[in-house]
Amino acid sequence: MDTIALYDTTLRDGTQGEHISFTVEEKLAIARRLDDFGVGFIEGGWPGSNPRDLHFFQLARRTPFCHARLAAFGATRRAGIGPEDDPNLAALLASGAEVVTVFGKAWDLHVETVMGNRLEENLAMIADSVAFLRQAGRTVVYDAEHFFDGYRANPAYALESLAAAAGAGAAWIVLCDTNGGSLPGDVAAATARVAAFLDTSPAGRPGAPPGIGIHTHNDCGLALANSLAAVGSGATMVHGTVNGYGERCGNADLTALVPVLQLKLGRTCVAEANLAKLKSLSRFVSETANQVPLNNRPFVGRSAFAHKGGIHVSAIAKEPRAYEHMDPTLVGNRRRVLVSDLAGRSNVAYKARELGVDLEANGGDARVILSQIKELEEIGFQFEAAEGSLKILLEKVTDQFKPLFELQSFRVSIEKDRDRPCSAHATIKIAVGEEEEITAAEGQGPVSALDNALRKALDRFYPDLDAMRLVDFKVRVIDGREGTAARVRVLIESRDQQEVWSTIGVSEDVIEASWQALADSFQYKLAKGAGSAKASPPGPTCP
Amino acid sequence: MDTIALYDTTLRDGTQGEHISFTVEEKLAIARRLDDFGVGFIEGGWPGSNPRDLHFFQLARRTPFCHARLAAFGATRRAGIGPEDDPNLAALLASGAEVVTVFGKAWDLHVETVMGNRLEENLAMIADSVAFLRQAGRTVVYDAEHFFDGYRANPAYALESLAAAAGAGAAWIVLCDTNGGSLPGDVAAATARVAAFLDTSPAGRPGAPPGIGIHTHNDCGLALANSLAAVGSGATMVHGTVNGYGERCGNADLTALVPVLQLKLGRTCVAEANLAKLKSLSRFVSETANQVPLNNRPFVGRSAFAHKGGIHVSAIAKEPRAYEHMDPTLVGNRRRVLVSDLAGRSNVAYKARELGVDLEANGGDARVILSQIKELEEIGFQFEAAEGSLKILLEKVTDQFKPLFELQSFRVSIEKDRDRPCSAHATIKIAVGEEEEITAAEGQGPVSALDNALRKALDRFYPDLDAMRLVDFKVRVIDGREGTAARVRVLIESRDQQEVWSTIGVSEDVIEASWQALADSFQYKLAKGAGSAKASPPGPTCP
Repeated sequence: MDTIALYDTTLRDGTQGEHISFTVEEKLAIARRLDDFGVGFIEGGWPGSNPRDLHFFQLARRTPFCHARLAAFGATRRAGIGPEDDPNLAALLASGAEVVTVFGKAWDLHVETVMGNRLEENLAMIADSVAFLRQAGRTVVYDAEHFFDGYRANPAYALESLAAAAGAGAAWIVLCDTNGGSLPGDVAAATARVAAFLDTSPAGRPGAPPGIGIHTHNDCGLALANSLAAVGSGATMVHGTVNGYGERCGNADLTALVPVLQLKLGRTCVAEANLAKLKSLSRFVSETANQVPLNNRPFVGRSAFAHKGGIHVSAIAKEPRAYEHMDPTLVGNRRRVLVSDLAGRSNVAYKARELGVDLEANGGDARVILSQIKELEEIGFQFEAAEGSLKILLEKVTDQFKPLFELQSFRVSIEKDRDRPCSAHATIKIAVGEEEEITAAEGQGPVSALDNALRKALDRFYPDLDAMRLVDFKVRVIDGREGTAARVRVLIESRDQQEVWSTIGVSEDVIEASWQALADSFQYKLAKGAGSAKASPPGPTCP
Repeated sequence: MDTIALYDTTLRDGTQGEHISFTVEEKLAIARRLDDFGVGFIEGGWPGSNPRDLHFFQLARRTPFCHARLAAFGATRRAGIGPEDDPNLAALLASGAEVVTVFGKAWDLHVETVMGNRLEENLAMIADSVAFLRQAGRTVVYDAEHFFDGYRANPAYALESLAAAAGAGAAWIVLCDTNGGSLPGDVAAATARVAAFLDTSPAGRPGAPPGIGIHTHNDCGLALANSLAAVGSGATMVHGTVNGYGERCGNADLTALVPVLQLKLGRTCVAEANLAKLKSLSRFVSETANQVPLNNRPFVGRSAFAHKGGIHVSAIAKEPRAYEHMDPTLVGNRRRVLVSDLAGRSNVAYKARELGVDLEANGGDARVILSQIKELEEIGFQFEAAEGSLKILLEKVTDQFKPLFELQSFRVSIEKDRDRPCSAHATIKIAVGEEEEITAAEGQGPVSALDNALRKALDRFYPDLDAMRLVDFKVRVIDGREGTAARVRVLIESRDQQEVWSTIGVSEDVIEASWQALADSFQYKLAKGAGSAKASPPGPTCP
């Protein structure tokens, strides 16, 4: 079979990750995006464990999904009672989910030492629970917790536990590497053994054997490789979470697993057109979880197809395959060229075109421009993260820069008395053409005061600055060993309704560095307004 | 052979990562930590490509390493000239590095389409360059760029390119998955073929075949799995970077590769005792790179052994193997139990003992103290990295704090006129006991001015402050979304002849936050002098 069933557990196992939690509304929004992407199974939560998950299933029942089937998660029945008396199984049925996933124990250590249970009773708990849910008309997915640890310790018992689920009618048997300590070779071998075993066991079972699923954790950095190893040995369902969110080091990351399976191994997970929604799905989930998106995340990160080295950039221009393992647009991403001190002339030329600056306009020499950039980078500038400032720099060195305001002077004072907090105010004097303006403002700290004062001074000349907001402000000490006299680099990210841009300043004085980045940011914005800059957006466009 | 040679390229390939750059001093500091960890090869940079890397090698020659050999990186000679005329090879020799790593082309597409070169000339470039460096007495590592892509496209030519390097005396042949698009199965098969090929090629080669190395990138999330696949097929050198920093999605992460090889596969990479330095190495490099350390990074992340689910926590109490794949202390990490104020209280008590603070001295209640710490952490304080401030806080909340000076007030002003740099000066008034002192000082920026003024004001009372120096100053914006009004966290590291200590401040105002950290640092130092603090050093001692 060439297709792979995708089983997403972002809403359940994903929320076990530190700092990951979702409201019911957020869970519904994510479920809709997963459905739209083409996920087959969405594990919505553990209705027996908390009221929020129960509420989710109540609401989700009213949401029609296009592709996905909703799964509720829970444990097998408790020891010593019948399945019909188990409140957890009852909650699973009450959730109304079409698919029910129950987990049971495959590792004798867990059964005996941790649970204080008998091995026989554990097998009965598995079989009873699966049969009970099956009889209630549910599709049953059986999660064999700690399967690989159990298989290492006592292979016969681990397989017997699977036979109990298979014999009772589980549609899927999922092999879980719960502790994340297994290696791909072990997973491949154990999965192959399970596939052979389920083909014949239990004796006399009617119908086809259940499908095999794989559920991995990333404690060794191998969740993805282990999932692929299992698929190579016959698994046809993969469990994972968007961005790999999950307990400890996380779960298998669907944003990598899906493109590897589909683009590298030719196994269909979602409709081809949907794959291009992958980056946007990843960003949606990271934004909803309020997690900073990882720049270097495979396939979907902002840096995943970014080129820095000069050699790479000139090669890419000739032949994309030279330094790109695939076309970034297939997963909704794009190529980016970074400018840095490792870069060659071809980077600068490429970047200038992207930013809409004509380097040759006034007889500019790319070699001279590059050496000026390198000198600035030597003292701590970093233009790869500040394309707004790079644009202004390129205009300056080619005599194309038209300042839309000029600083005459500023004064910032900070006052503190005993235990009262600091107060800051700034006075600023600027010139716009022949006219001058002097004003003052307060702020939360000196940079904020300066920002407010500049904005106030410019207001008379450029009333449309209201639409511009500073969205990020980063300070880094370049060489901390100089103590408080160390040089600092300030990065400012700004936005308006159309785009996001970044600017930079470097100085021993944090206020001077902040001023440079602030001034560049306002110049960049005003140049856009003046129609003199028609560059393509240097940062991602805001949603 | 059971041992694996570690080849670290954090300082070269790592700096190809977006937002990763190091000063020369930072590179030296990282190299010393890598050496201390037990890395065998440290790739310091590309001396032919930029002045900063050249400078690094000049300084590094004066630094004796215990385990590591320094490697310089560069390309094979240009087409059409002799190796003795190639400026890049000359720069490699001039670097003085004992090991030289040259990269050449293994993929016919690259040779012909991208370089516009002839296949024969490419082989000569490889052989000439390796022989030239060999004759100059260097150990030569040959990086076969794009080896796996080349092997897929034209296996005979890819192998021939390796034979050219091997025949010319390369000690190591490194198979590079430059674009990061290969899968573990491909890597295993190709590496096995290379091992068999190099055993017999080139015909008539004297001496043993070169060792095989593996250099992977993480574009498919498989850098680690691919490295393991190559080791399984005969590679005995692994290339990687600390925290996986590197171009696009990064390189193989040594912080995962080393523990998997050593703890899971029994292949010795470093001395057993050194493995426990892994977490601290990871943190040191992320702090130096000013990258937020990833909580969920396998083995070394803060969440790597954190338990959230109630079931897991009680199981762990009975049997750690239940939900832990290994003992976290082996890599210098520790188990964390989230949301458990019992664990929290015992932590505080443990920490207080370490810092020499008697929590019960004035009827202190560990529960109350913990909730005060939690409140401060909620607004952005982080005492893990600021034990100097934690000590002062613990003294304050237990009424044991004896201020050795008190701030009456300060004023800081920053002035800027047109294009001239900012100037900063500070006025400060303090009280020591009944006496007051008011004074002023200048500085490079407002914090430096404040530092100088405080030092000058205290001088009359505490003349031994000369021995105290601020060695590091870090600023991080806690929530950048507030723009210039965002809250910032300032960390200051100080030292005297005996120890290093860190202090912290948090505020919307960078000056206020800096003041808090500065004041704590001076208080900590003065308390030591007053003999009231006999705590063990809270930070690492400088080498």
